Amino acid sequence: MTISVLRIGQRIVRDDRVTTHAALVARAFGASRIYMSDINPDIVRTVRDVCKTWGGSFEVEPTDSWRDILCDAKERGQTIVHLTMYGSRIGDVADEIAANDSVLIVIGAQKVPRDVYDIADYNVAVGSQPHSEIAALAVALDRIQHGRQFDSEFPDAARKIVPTEHGKQVL
Amino acid sequence: MTISVLRIGQRIVRDDRVTTHAALVARAFGASRIYMSDINPDIVRTVRDVCKTWGGSFEVEPTDSWRDILCDAKERGQTIVHLTMYGSRIGDVADEIAANDSVLIVIGAQKVPRDVYDIADYNVAVGSQPHSEIAALAVALDRIQHGRQFDSEFPDAARKIVPTEHGKQVL
Repeated sequence: MTISVLRIGQRIVRDDRVTTHAALVARAFGASRIYMSDINPDIVRTVRDVCKTWGGSFEVEPTDSWRDILCDAKERGQTIVHLTMYGSRIGDVADEIAANDSVLIVIGAQKVPRDVYDIADYNVAVGSQPHSEIAALAVALDRIQHGRQFDSEFPDAARKIVPTEHGKQVL
Repeated sequence: MTISVLRIGQRIVRDDRVTTHAALVARAFGASRIYMSDINPDIVRTVRDVCKTWGGSFEVEPTDSWRDILCDAKERGQTIVHLTMYGSRIGDVADEIAANDSVLIVIGAQKVPRDVYDIADYNVAVGSQPHSEIAALAVALDRIQHGRQFDSEFPDAARKIVPTEHGKQVL
């Protein structure tokens, strides 16, 4: 499955750390790219540095228009999954979503325009309580990949961790 | 299962939004409380407001000493689970952790003191790539509760969402 992420509505400076977390989660949980509008160039740099050190080919792609990204996704036949606390329960739809070849996951930093709800193939709630789009993204990616994202290799890494019970082992 | 969360190492202002996300994730994913040092009173207020509106009895408990919290947990027989990218794979230990009655999950905003690795009963990696303690907390809570946290009720809520395919339904 090929996965892209679109994050909309972030505010520069105020949301910078959360934006960085969202991008790193997308990468660590198997997405190939994240599209973002209004992105601080420092964040793009931070994420590229992580890729250099830890491997893989994840891309941060700045965009001026979330609508263009959604329309392109539709045209290419990608399944659009919008994460919102108002949507269908993740447990009810995860297996159906998992059956797709190509998915675009949409997360919002603030209130998301109504059009996104209408354009999305799935509006999905990772719990119906207010929490965090970072958490929603992580759990959604974990559920639709049945945890297999953690078996992926990140090629050309300068550093690699060997999981261990106590302490730290790094290659 | 009773779950508490301890977050250590956050920096006021710089980390405030991430700190708020961590607290809200703890609440939404079934923990009863989060302990935090160096916490901005605004965050405590924000989380209390969420509880008033959305129900339940989640508590933010300021602490001056993470070590005291860990020692108390040990004495009370709680299982201490430290989330770190260096730890054992979550898939290998989640079921074992799920068998405990009472768990304290420890997350760090920055580099965590070596003692935490030694005191913890489990050092657990939610993937061994750099990402986000918010994501790690959410996925760990989802895995050790087998997704059942989303079936919980939050008593005395002023607002409650009815999951729906398109649009918003709020009681």
